[in-house]
Amino acid sequence: MPPVGLIDPTALPIPIPYKNQKMKLATLKDGSRDGQLAVVSRDLKTAVLADAIAPTLQRALDDWAFIAPQLEELSVALNQGPVRHGFPFDPRRCMAPLPRAFQWVDGSAYVNHVELVRRARKAEMPASFWHEPLMYQGGSDDFIGPTDDIRFASAEWGIDFEGEVAVITGDVPMTATTDQGAAQIRLLMLVNDVSLRNLIPEELAKGFGFVQSKPASSFSPVAVTPDELGDAWHDGKVHLPLRTTWNGLQVGAPDAGTDMVFSFPQLIAHVAKTRNLRAGSIVGSGTVSNKDASKGYTCIAEKRCLEMIAGGEAKTPFMQFGDTIRLEMADASGKSIFGAIDQTLVQVVEAGARKRLPERA
Amino acid sequence: MPPVGLIDPTALPIPIPYKNQKMKLATLKDGSRDGQLAVVSRDLKTAVLADAIAPTLQRALDDWAFIAPQLEELSVALNQGPVRHGFPFDPRRCMAPLPRAFQWVDGSAYVNHVELVRRARKAEMPASFWHEPLMYQGGSDDFIGPTDDIRFASAEWGIDFEGEVAVITGDVPMTATTDQGAAQIRLLMLVNDVSLRNLIPEELAKGFGFVQSKPASSFSPVAVTPDELGDAWHDGKVHLPLRTTWNGLQVGAPDAGTDMVFSFPQLIAHVAKTRNLRAGSIVGSGTVSNKDASKGYTCIAEKRCLEMIAGGEAKTPFMQFGDTIRLEMADASGKSIFGAIDQTLVQVVEAGARKRLPERA
Repeated sequence: MPPVGLIDPTALPIPIPYKNQKMKLATLKDGSRDGQLAVVSRDLKTAVLADAIAPTLQRALDDWAFIAPQLEELSVALNQGPVRHGFPFDPRRCMAPLPRAFQWVDGSAYVNHVELVRRARKAEMPASFWHEPLMYQGGSDDFIGPTDDIRFASAEWGIDFEGEVAVITGDVPMTATTDQGAAQIRLLMLVNDVSLRNLIPEELAKGFGFVQSKPASSFSPVAVTPDELGDAWHDGKVHLPLRTTWNGLQVGAPDAGTDMVFSFPQLIAHVAKTRNLRAGSIVGSGTVSNKDASKGYTCIAEKRCLEMIAGGEAKTPFMQFGDTIRLEMADASGKSIFGAIDQTLVQVVEAGARKRLPERA
Repeated sequence: MPPVGLIDPTALPIPIPYKNQKMKLATLKDGSRDGQLAVVSRDLKTAVLADAIAPTLQRALDDWAFIAPQLEELSVALNQGPVRHGFPFDPRRCMAPLPRAFQWVDGSAYVNHVELVRRARKAEMPASFWHEPLMYQGGSDDFIGPTDDIRFASAEWGIDFEGEVAVITGDVPMTATTDQGAAQIRLLMLVNDVSLRNLIPEELAKGFGFVQSKPASSFSPVAVTPDELGDAWHDGKVHLPLRTTWNGLQVGAPDAGTDMVFSFPQLIAHVAKTRNLRAGSIVGSGTVSNKDASKGYTCIAEKRCLEMIAGGEAKTPFMQFGDTIRLEMADASGKSIFGAIDQTLVQVVEAGARKRLPERA
């Protein structure tokens, strides 16, 4: 006899707010597609495999109410002192916390960024952009680890980084309110939402969103529970600066809590209007951007827009092969929260090529 | 010590064409998120769980070269006669073959459909649409089973069905050619790409694609290997009519091989230009549509467009709560290949509500 048991995918329970666990989680490379779940110490110095609790982060998210307290227990032990089978944490061994996910939907919550881009090309921005979130559905089958290379066949495409914050949700039922959405925020991460600027205009003109121009995104070494952020997490936003370093030079540190017009719960509720979000959905903030231009930039496009508005011409080129990009967020005491996204841009020669071209002189 | 073993996600091997297995696969409801993999007989009458081989379809796709021959062996036995633990196949027990997937990217390969929609609103279609595929990234975290209800809060949104064919791929490396893409087509399915027509114009105007207006899609009871289609599968297209029945009335049977301007391998290569597609990626054809209007329609929007072009006014209303929609494809001898998508549209009252409203009189 076959298994019986009806699942009604749209009849998800209404989320009830509950105390989030306090911990940092990472996914370690082990040759498999989903990697191995590990708990990481608050100071990012040590880690321990969570294999006795849940083999992968997706598995933990699938049954969070049962699994998270066990992970938290391991986290408490790890932060108190040496644990059996603990080992030094090395971000280079990390995959993205979810190496592949069932959903990646990204907002443009820093409307300032959108306005700048429009102003640079002398296009008017619809007023609705200030009260209706702009979002797009991204590919989620092949995320890049925090220190893995970014690879493309051509730099002519206008390769750009985008520094963002993202949340991972539990199950959010269709028609959920912002409060119900807020209750389902499980973890936070940093994102490098790599964009191919010169492919964007043609795709956007078609109206169907990004297919070629928003390729695989990269994520921070660890995902953290909201409570790990302490006072910096309120109103569904992260109130800390995102530090962006391009080829060793800091180019921006805008505050992620400032000028974020739509909070994460609002972004989640926007998606939930016509469908469920299932456990492990990743929702992004969009490029962090402050109106105060002295805070710098987290994507080259914004710098180029400012140049065009000021002098009629964009001077800063997009990324070249061999370039490095680093994204990091520190707490009030200067300690890294998520570890750093720290990547090199490398040229791919042909399908499946492993050979690297010589780097730019 | 932590596990070691570097994964280089962009250095996928170049696909080598190999003989596809011949079989039909389904995913049965068991109360879990991913269901249980089953092999289904060619005549869709009997099935057997594949749990001794692979628990889920995604697991099979993750290691296809090793798993598929074992599934095929089970399929051969099942089609030859009674097998141990075989049971009658019931589509109502099916989830979507992949109840959640890591990617769902949908094309608009029947450019005729796109041209009609544009013509109805007196907009010009860019000539590039005939030689550059139009595609969008869809949500893939919460697919609907073939006989499960479609649920929404409001019929004001202009609820429409869209009959499509889709393929499931293996790993396709970035920059793959169409031939390399073709070699990675593992399975085929039917799709009901439910669309909310009245939410589309506003979202398309923003350029960022569909977030609210293309909610959860539904899939056929079984996914089949290309070889199951025999002569009907060539040039990367399915050369058979897709029968669409709305409230018991057949409204269309356009041929899926006719007027498909971009083949599945071409759609795959389009996505692969700037990124890998990982195993279990679903690539859709877009609404099947023939220039010969006597073949009928597979989405209401197209019927309405024809009405507008003919008489200036769309007369056929979109779906109402209580409506049923059935999509099916038969082989040359009239036998159903994928089983039928057969759904009822039901109103959702609030987040997580299980109560159904009375159906339309």
